[in-house]
Amino acid sequence: MKFGGRLPAGSPVIAHDVGGTFTKSMLVGADGTILQSLHGPTGGLKRQAQADATSEVRAELVRRTAKFRKDHPDVAPDAVGVVVPGVVDEREQLARYSANLGWHDLPLGRLLSDDLGLPVRLGHDVRAGTLAEHSLGAAQGVDEVTVVVIGTGIAAGIVTGGRLVSVGGYAGEVGHAVILPGGPMCGCGGRGHLEAIASAGAIARRYEQASGDQVDGAREVLRRRNHGDPLARRMWAEATDALAMYLCMLIATLSPEVVVLSGGLALAGADLLDPIRDRIEEELTFQRAPDLRLSTLGEDAGMIGAALLAREQPGGGENAG
Amino acid sequence: MKFGGRLPAGSPVIAHDVGGTFTKSMLVGADGTILQSLHGPTGGLKRQAQADATSEVRAELVRRTAKFRKDHPDVAPDAVGVVVPGVVDEREQLARYSANLGWHDLPLGRLLSDDLGLPVRLGHDVRAGTLAEHSLGAAQGVDEVTVVVIGTGIAAGIVTGGRLVSVGGYAGEVGHAVILPGGPMCGCGGRGHLEAIASAGAIARRYEQASGDQVDGAREVLRRRNHGDPLARRMWAEATDALAMYLCMLIATLSPEVVVLSGGLALAGADLLDPIRDRIEEELTFQRAPDLRLSTLGEDAGMIGAALLAREQPGGGENAG
Repeated sequence: MKFGGRLPAGSPVIAHDVGGTFTKSMLVGADGTILQSLHGPTGGLKRQAQADATSEVRAELVRRTAKFRKDHPDVAPDAVGVVVPGVVDEREQLARYSANLGWHDLPLGRLLSDDLGLPVRLGHDVRAGTLAEHSLGAAQGVDEVTVVVIGTGIAAGIVTGGRLVSVGGYAGEVGHAVILPGGPMCGCGGRGHLEAIASAGAIARRYEQASGDQVDGAREVLRRRNHGDPLARRMWAEATDALAMYLCMLIATLSPEVVVLSGGLALAGADLLDPIRDRIEEELTFQRAPDLRLSTLGEDAGMIGAALLAREQPGGGENAG
Repeated sequence: MKFGGRLPAGSPVIAHDVGGTFTKSMLVGADGTILQSLHGPTGGLKRQAQADATSEVRAELVRRTAKFRKDHPDVAPDAVGVVVPGVVDEREQLARYSANLGWHDLPLGRLLSDDLGLPVRLGHDVRAGTLAEHSLGAAQGVDEVTVVVIGTGIAAGIVTGGRLVSVGGYAGEVGHAVILPGGPMCGCGGRGHLEAIASAGAIARRYEQASGDQVDGAREVLRRRNHGDPLARRMWAEATDALAMYLCMLIATLSPEVVVLSGGLALAGADLLDPIRDRIEEELTFQRAPDLRLSTLGEDAGMIGAALLAREQPGGGENAG
């Protein structure tokens, strides 16, 4: 845990971050201590079948909840926060869509509440992670923040006026902003999208296609770039340029005070941050440049956000804590 | 007045829309009727001198307010709404910046309140116009709306979750989104900005530069395009493509349900709307396409928004009406 290993004091809660392949869970005590963590595969999912993925996820969360209770019989969680990928409608507590998990308009919040016998608050992994960065991480106390998560794909969580923007789950699909009309094919079938140029997956894939070499992900492209490989330099520069171009559009639209870069690619640190910052500064004229920061919560942001959501749940909120 | 000529019933208020060259004012009665309108130049402004522009504007608004009172002695306005261009901080009631009017951090709300002896609510022309479209115009009842005003420049008002986004006045400068890196020079000194390609001014200017002809604004470029002039077709297509590219980025970020096109270029109607809509549909894959609409309030939107702001003012609100 990169944030000091504890949350603020509040009610005891359980948090689950359900990923396409991996699920992370934790039990948080009333003093904010993380009492226990469980990490493991989301299940032997048959990805095309909604019923299978759903029953696997439900069964796994029931098992983990039972284990937390068995191992900590003295802790009585007030609520459970669950965050999932895809399109999530927080207001309706629906998993509207997930390509990986095969979900369509699934009332997952209600189903899990029935399974677990506790109030459940369903949220979106990236938006919950944004809430966590805003509350405890890289953007504490900043009311105008965008968190851009760059991994296999690219998505963002947006806070304006101190509030998370959800738009029924449709906001923040920034990986599909068109950066280069007619450019590289995106997984969604579009062309020239941000994530087809600048995601960790795209950087590795494009380098492999152009070089004929196999590489160990974007990290190896970065290593080769830092050793002077001209093709790796070009691929890395195209990625950071595309991110800078997207951020210039975001600045023109919402003028965030802080932009947090998160996800696997953010492990590149200054090698990611510096060229993006330089390019943005080249392009801006009178506009206010945002403070560009790296995530401090890293891959734990979604799970921490799930715990914060559980605390907002009636029965799990500060009033009940 | 394109919206039926009356506002909802409420307190009687005065509204002023102060433009770079032209100021529009109206007196609204308690039943929502527009009792009197005054239109005219903003004043013989020496544009470089903040003191001159400020005193001219203040004197003009005092004259108009006195005229409303003289002509309608039976109406006692509760408050005044004033909207201005540039960067406006509604919370602090400051005109932070206006290139045309020479303002820097001017406490215009307080100054005008002293001048007029009435509560004044200072707002931003585009955001107030967006509030008007949201309350009475093309986007009534829609909580996720962006209004893009395309005239000499391009700016936008954004509503998300039913609230206007201001960010201290910095939001919505979408004319300066980079669409074509290294492209045409913008008035701000940047390159390839949306308004350097797609504003009414840019369309006319770029056509003149490429053809050597003088034209009567973007409307003549449109007329020539519709008569088959290949250069005019290209310039118009580049403008509508740039707008579509910006809107794709906006959809990926905020997924508005409705996008309203306003300003002088919106007078082109279907000639503007159809190519933008077609291009957006080509680019989108799984994302939700917004409903693309033309403004119904047109050039009155800012003044109507100013009246709505005046009604929100303590002393001019519904509670006092």
